[in-house]
Amino acid sequence: MSDYQHPYRDAEFVIRELVEFDQLCTDAGMEDINSELASVIMTEAGKLGSEVLGPLNRVGDAQGAQLTDKGVEQTPGFSEAYQQFAEGGWQSLTPSEEFGGQNLPNVLGTAVSEVWQSSNLAFALCPLLTQGAIEAIAHHASDELKQTWLPNMISGRWTGSMNLTEPDAGSDLAAVKTRAVPEGDHYLITGQKIFITWGDHQMTDNIVHLVLARLPDAPPGVKGISLFIVPKFILDENGNPAERNDAHCVSLEHKLGIHGSPTCVMSFGDNGGATGYLVGEPHNGLSCMFTMMNDARQNVGLQGLGIAERSYQQAVQYAKDRIQGTNRDGSRYPIIKFPDVRRMLMQMKAGVEAMRALAYIASSEIDRSRFADDSEASRQHFARVELYTPIVKGWMTELAQEITYLGVQIHGGMGFIEETGAAQHYRDARILTIYEGTTGIQALDLVGRKTLSNQGQVLAELLADIQETQTELSQHAELSEQAEALKSALDTAQQARQWLLENAEDKTAPGSVSVHFMMLMGYLCGGWVMARSALKAQSLLEKSEGDPEFLQSKLITARFYSEHLLPRVYSHLATIKAGSHSVMALDEEQF
Amino acid sequence: MSDYQHPYRDAEFVIRELVEFDQLCTDAGMEDINSELASVIMTEAGKLGSEVLGPLNRVGDAQGAQLTDKGVEQTPGFSEAYQQFAEGGWQSLTPSEEFGGQNLPNVLGTAVSEVWQSSNLAFALCPLLTQGAIEAIAHHASDELKQTWLPNMISGRWTGSMNLTEPDAGSDLAAVKTRAVPEGDHYLITGQKIFITWGDHQMTDNIVHLVLARLPDAPPGVKGISLFIVPKFILDENGNPAERNDAHCVSLEHKLGIHGSPTCVMSFGDNGGATGYLVGEPHNGLSCMFTMMNDARQNVGLQGLGIAERSYQQAVQYAKDRIQGTNRDGSRYPIIKFPDVRRMLMQMKAGVEAMRALAYIASSEIDRSRFADDSEASRQHFARVELYTPIVKGWMTELAQEITYLGVQIHGGMGFIEETGAAQHYRDARILTIYEGTTGIQALDLVGRKTLSNQGQVLAELLADIQETQTELSQHAELSEQAEALKSALDTAQQARQWLLENAEDKTAPGSVSVHFMMLMGYLCGGWVMARSALKAQSLLEKSEGDPEFLQSKLITARFYSEHLLPRVYSHLATIKAGSHSVMALDEEQF
Repeated sequence: MSDYQHPYRDAEFVIRELVEFDQLCTDAGMEDINSELASVIMTEAGKLGSEVLGPLNRVGDAQGAQLTDKGVEQTPGFSEAYQQFAEGGWQSLTPSEEFGGQNLPNVLGTAVSEVWQSSNLAFALCPLLTQGAIEAIAHHASDELKQTWLPNMISGRWTGSMNLTEPDAGSDLAAVKTRAVPEGDHYLITGQKIFITWGDHQMTDNIVHLVLARLPDAPPGVKGISLFIVPKFILDENGNPAERNDAHCVSLEHKLGIHGSPTCVMSFGDNGGATGYLVGEPHNGLSCMFTMMNDARQNVGLQGLGIAERSYQQAVQYAKDRIQGTNRDGSRYPIIKFPDVRRMLMQMKAGVEAMRALAYIASSEIDRSRFADDSEASRQHFARVELYTPIVKGWMTELAQEITYLGVQIHGGMGFIEETGAAQHYRDARILTIYEGTTGIQALDLVGRKTLSNQGQVLAELLADIQETQTELSQHAELSEQAEALKSALDTAQQARQWLLENAEDKTAPGSVSVHFMMLMGYLCGGWVMARSALKAQSLLEKSEGDPEFLQSKLITARFYSEHLLPRVYSHLATIKAGSHSVMALDEEQF
Repeated sequence: MSDYQHPYRDAEFVIRELVEFDQLCTDAGMEDINSELASVIMTEAGKLGSEVLGPLNRVGDAQGAQLTDKGVEQTPGFSEAYQQFAEGGWQSLTPSEEFGGQNLPNVLGTAVSEVWQSSNLAFALCPLLTQGAIEAIAHHASDELKQTWLPNMISGRWTGSMNLTEPDAGSDLAAVKTRAVPEGDHYLITGQKIFITWGDHQMTDNIVHLVLARLPDAPPGVKGISLFIVPKFILDENGNPAERNDAHCVSLEHKLGIHGSPTCVMSFGDNGGATGYLVGEPHNGLSCMFTMMNDARQNVGLQGLGIAERSYQQAVQYAKDRIQGTNRDGSRYPIIKFPDVRRMLMQMKAGVEAMRALAYIASSEIDRSRFADDSEASRQHFARVELYTPIVKGWMTELAQEITYLGVQIHGGMGFIEETGAAQHYRDARILTIYEGTTGIQALDLVGRKTLSNQGQVLAELLADIQETQTELSQHAELSEQAEALKSALDTAQQARQWLLENAEDKTAPGSVSVHFMMLMGYLCGGWVMARSALKAQSLLEKSEGDPEFLQSKLITARFYSEHLLPRVYSHLATIKAGSHSVMALDEEQF
């Protein structure tokens, strides 16, 4: 097991140099916020992460949540940690001031959230889902519901949960069966939901479940789903939790990882119906849910970064400590001197830094969309957010698998021993490509809704931005090889885009190539943000600003990325061009 | 959880058409052995696998081995299964008749071993290590030791274990500290060994440990290591186990996977010294150990195939059963109809079939070396065995990670639930790239001992064989795209070989690029054997021989391989050509 330390130098570099946080705050009219303040906030978060949440990570794995007569009992120590988290005001960072939030830029929330995801992923799922629930209510609920529920969620007094999945309705929400029947000023909800993360616990005096259900007059399919607030405790006239609602966790899943995060089977209405309140318009639940999901999807991508960073830190420590090489004179040295161990560490480091840059940049587009001067600019930034979301979620969580895999590999035989802790990161990471929409779902979203539906226009704008960076890169002699590599990679993306547009009439083509397309775009975006990092590092070094050791390391890591990770676009392009034939040609019986 | 079924059609195809088993047996002068007999033997093994070992796989995971006062207690049911295994004569398949073996071709042993590895990997490790121990004793021990130990190991009455690793001596065996002191006709062994698979159990009345240790006059480093037989029970004058030897399991590891396989800390000589017998010459233990390891390495590659096949079978079943798509008329369909699920299943299927073909072909080269008419032919076949071994071990176990990963992914959320069983394959597979030499060790072996040390000659011979297949492929119009793909891939291998030869003077170059080189060679060899499969399938279809449905499926799977897996060589080549600079450039403090 290793300690978690906030990687403040890289986080600050991304915030200052790539996100251009100071400019962003000025543009948004937030003159009192700047990157100095951001550093102070990140440092405070880093302390809570390394001192409180990090040490509980292994405890959560070994002593997972348990279902008892009183409901779900969380891991020992989690409740106290949650109180510190809530008292620190960490849940209130980005929500609006109207309901007690601090209204800080979204990207700062992302930078801080990285700390929670990295130090204790199982724990951090609770505030992550609460944030999604806050977003959904803030965007879609009536003023009365907002007033009733948001202040206590934003303060951290109550947590939230997302209740979508049913046994027959996973990726396909059209099959949702849970029912909602009007009853006076509220609804009675009946049905069963599965895979409900943090669906119950004893850390707070209430839990606000957001539940998808069908009204009696609902049309079939996804257009007949509505969203409801279903609290664990119904509020009394003073707004305090009083009567226990008919919503219970009836069992917990036995999972591969994230043992500290209870995954509940939730039963609504076993005793006549759970009291619920309609959020937004009837039958409009899916669009409410998408607000919640888009937010959650970028955050799950961030979890990929978080777990990868943690795994990297542990691998570095082990590689420096583990003596295994023998010199000719009999003296011995640590495995970090082996080139292949170096290669693995560099692969982890380059992947982590590319992910961090991309995640923060994607998150800052949400701010830019929100604070844009005119609606056209806002629309463009929002289109970019929508384009980034499946890449951040899909590519980053896939890359996190490889990085946590390497984290185990560097430990050799010790990596397979549970007490070491490397295996926990590997197990915990495995859920990330599945929940909040599998990799396949993200890829289809990228190809369909985000590309084909606008004839590839939004994608073309991103590629034009990458081209701009490539041009700048090519003007620096020291970076010419990276410029060439980025040029080739950009060319593969152009070809892939073209192929998609030309083959859209083959109904099985998008689904057959979509994951390869998403991975290609992910590696390209990673190459792009690392190229931007190299340009900034080069410029700072020329001006003798910043920490030269850090900036030199950034230049080398960017070069490594362009040599080791970026070339993967070639094989993805080759596969895309092969199309759907061999994917679809077998009869089902031939499998 | 799903049942295991022996994939007899593919196994028979590989044995008959690719290995050309009948010809092999004729050449070896084994006229009474042919592919009909091989099918009968594989079918019998398949029954034991599906009816006895397969159902115990999940039991082993949930109820792993335990250390008790009596020593290690194996998983309930394993002992009875082992008796059936031993009584069936399965341990005796390939050893020589002199000590009670059946002297069947090595490749048939491999085909049968696939069944054990696939149906129950944790269980199968016990016979796997016993086989390695048999090989080491048969090749290096005195006649007296052979006579004493081999018959009961070959009959399955006793099992074997390999005791190499110590806390400070993992990949670097130079650091072995265990000591052996002469005492009359034997030696007294003192020291501790870790990660000893099946180091203790109650399934047999003795266990034959092979132990690396240093004699008092041993030179330092790997040239001072000797190999000893150290039994659990010392034999009486009739050759039966009698006095308990001073060799004990003192603790068991808590592992990520293969819970059914006890991983022991072994303590030798806590009460004065464990009785041991020298195998081969003093200080020559490493070469004895290599006999054992080479055998074990190909077998661990085979475990990669086995676990991948098992994971594939389970994923196919789930994809056919799981209803999740909704048609416009409201009717629903299983997820196997989704193109992206197809892609994942095809990726698993193509990977598994390429691995099986390569593993069996590699194994048959051992037979060809053994039965060759002249020593030059024998030497050539043996050089090919040595070249294949790190590819079979390294590439196949890496590919098995991806395949078991996809096995979880196809299950969606259910894949993360332990009861489903997909996660067990994923966890079990994780050890395969670590034990018997990590992926990095395999890759260094391939680049160093197997390529650079002979100026790339042995590799050139393999590439010439692949070229021959490519030429043949290009003469079939239907296979012309695959011929082009194989040509390009072959060209990447030529370039990579050239690069290695030209850059050998950079000491960090081999280690920096070795894993990419090994993976490139693995994907190329996979493409080669799939191309050979396609040629055979095409030829049989033209002659209206064989099962057309199976042969058509083989053609499509070969095409899929050449479109989805083979193109990965491009990115590996690009990375190889980048060399060692960015891998090695950072100071240790910059990590």
